[in-house]
Amino acid sequence: MKTILLALGGNALIGEGQRGTVGEEHENARNSMEAIADLVAAGNRLVITHGNGPQAGAYLIRSERAAAFVPPLPLNSIVAATQGDIGSILSLELMNALSRRGIVKGVAVLLTQIVVDPADPSMSNPCKFVGPFFQEAEVAKLRERGWIVKEDAGRGYRRVVPSPLPLDIVEKKVIASLLEAGNVVIAAGGGGIPVRREGGELSGVDAVIDKDRASALLATLIGADELVILTGVERVMVNYRKPGERALDSLTVAEAKAYLAEGQFPGGSMGPKIEAAIDYLEKGGGRVVITSIDSCAAALEGHAGTTMTR
Amino acid sequence: MKTILLALGGNALIGEGQRGTVGEEHENARNSMEAIADLVAAGNRLVITHGNGPQAGAYLIRSERAAAFVPPLPLNSIVAATQGDIGSILSLELMNALSRRGIVKGVAVLLTQIVVDPADPSMSNPCKFVGPFFQEAEVAKLRERGWIVKEDAGRGYRRVVPSPLPLDIVEKKVIASLLEAGNVVIAAGGGGIPVRREGGELSGVDAVIDKDRASALLATLIGADELVILTGVERVMVNYRKPGERALDSLTVAEAKAYLAEGQFPGGSMGPKIEAAIDYLEKGGGRVVITSIDSCAAALEGHAGTTMTR
Repeated sequence: MKTILLALGGNALIGEGQRGTVGEEHENARNSMEAIADLVAAGNRLVITHGNGPQAGAYLIRSERAAAFVPPLPLNSIVAATQGDIGSILSLELMNALSRRGIVKGVAVLLTQIVVDPADPSMSNPCKFVGPFFQEAEVAKLRERGWIVKEDAGRGYRRVVPSPLPLDIVEKKVIASLLEAGNVVIAAGGGGIPVRREGGELSGVDAVIDKDRASALLATLIGADELVILTGVERVMVNYRKPGERALDSLTVAEAKAYLAEGQFPGGSMGPKIEAAIDYLEKGGGRVVITSIDSCAAALEGHAGTTMTR
Repeated sequence: MKTILLALGGNALIGEGQRGTVGEEHENARNSMEAIADLVAAGNRLVITHGNGPQAGAYLIRSERAAAFVPPLPLNSIVAATQGDIGSILSLELMNALSRRGIVKGVAVLLTQIVVDPADPSMSNPCKFVGPFFQEAEVAKLRERGWIVKEDAGRGYRRVVPSPLPLDIVEKKVIASLLEAGNVVIAAGGGGIPVRREGGELSGVDAVIDKDRASALLATLIGADELVILTGVERVMVNYRKPGERALDSLTVAEAKAYLAEGQFPGGSMGPKIEAAIDYLEKGGGRVVITSIDSCAAALEGHAGTTMTR
């Protein structure tokens, strides 16, 4: 029996041009969970992680708009809230997909807290854009609140926040034992809730963690045989939208590092996935598959997607 | 080893006159978790449930204030969000309190979904007040959105929502196995996320569940030896603020039913706790203790609080 960590992208829940209503999220989750239930039916042991970009953005807007009435939410609280909110949607749709296949299996959504270093360079030099766009006139007021606000590629001003590297997962043993007991586990949602450990005490950190980095760490810590990163494209591309554009069937760590050095993978999207994949493989991981949800089953059999190995 | 289900009231996290900032919530949780860590140190197996009244109210306000910008959240999504948000605070403070005692133990916050009957009388006749107060002038607009809005005791207009009885807990086996494996489990937060089961499929229900009722059901389903309901008072009172006022050391199910029939326990506060306690005891539960967090340890030894038995 293989243990597979499946990292779902934000597009598993909110499609292109959608607003992200609960109805839309359920419909998209239903499609994703159909494919994932097939992997359970095939006898795999599964841990599912997920992004929370659009949902966290919506919670930030809610928090902002009500800041005069109720205390605003720090980023760690927002990640925690989205673990609950998105976790419930994924869990219901997965249980339904399993039940349509006559599979009786526990589905456990576990709150996951991830240790980061308060001295991570990203803490003092935040560069992850989050939440809504603001007008230039609003910027001064936002900065008074201690926010760091930067221009985002000519589209307006946005808050930038720290995105430190994940170092350890507080609930790693609980996750391993839930898997061992035969449950499908949904964990590390939204990259995990960032916490710091100082003098033996844990406390929240107002930051976010990259969900692919968190997924790679979890895959390493639980000894997953495979890390499957689901995204919007079927295969990793090089020379994207340029002469010599090519989709990759396979990729070694050395090749991936060379492409990264060439700047082939954009920082906000494929870059962190490739870095996370390298990290998992270099720490002893078995295989990484990067593909779309629709090609997932074929990719695991080697007929689609990009397969990365050491 | 005894299994104890501890139901924390809203005041475990937000004190009288506080706004409910994350800092305040952590400080209050720290105090509660000191007492609870002592129960773990004494060798008990613990499941912790918690309310979410003020926090859910704040999420409702956030959802409302941003409704023109991002899709508003149904109540089941809000309960799910508060399971994450509050669960993280309780979990960190409990792990810290355990660590100060040199106890190494997993703390698992498990997303908990609870089955309700879509034909529950409360679904068509909602009467649980939630969220902020509105002016009379705003009521028409709120009703256009399908909300049911009623006057709340002369203090203004508020939304009323269904609060159906909990019937089954989707994650009951996962909770039991987490306990069996030696973890402290935080579950059924905010009364649990309401879902309906129809034709073998689960889906969300826009409602809330009373947290004491949900706690009693969970205590029954996992076969807890004791149900401890923590609230703002040290003992249950009869003739409260009237001639013959009396604090009760003990209470049988028959006495409790007689007091309920007399109208001794107000509907919004002690009433549901007594009803939940009766329900747990009549279904075979061992003992119920109703007391404050400060008196919890003494109450479990019979020196404080109100002890209910069959």
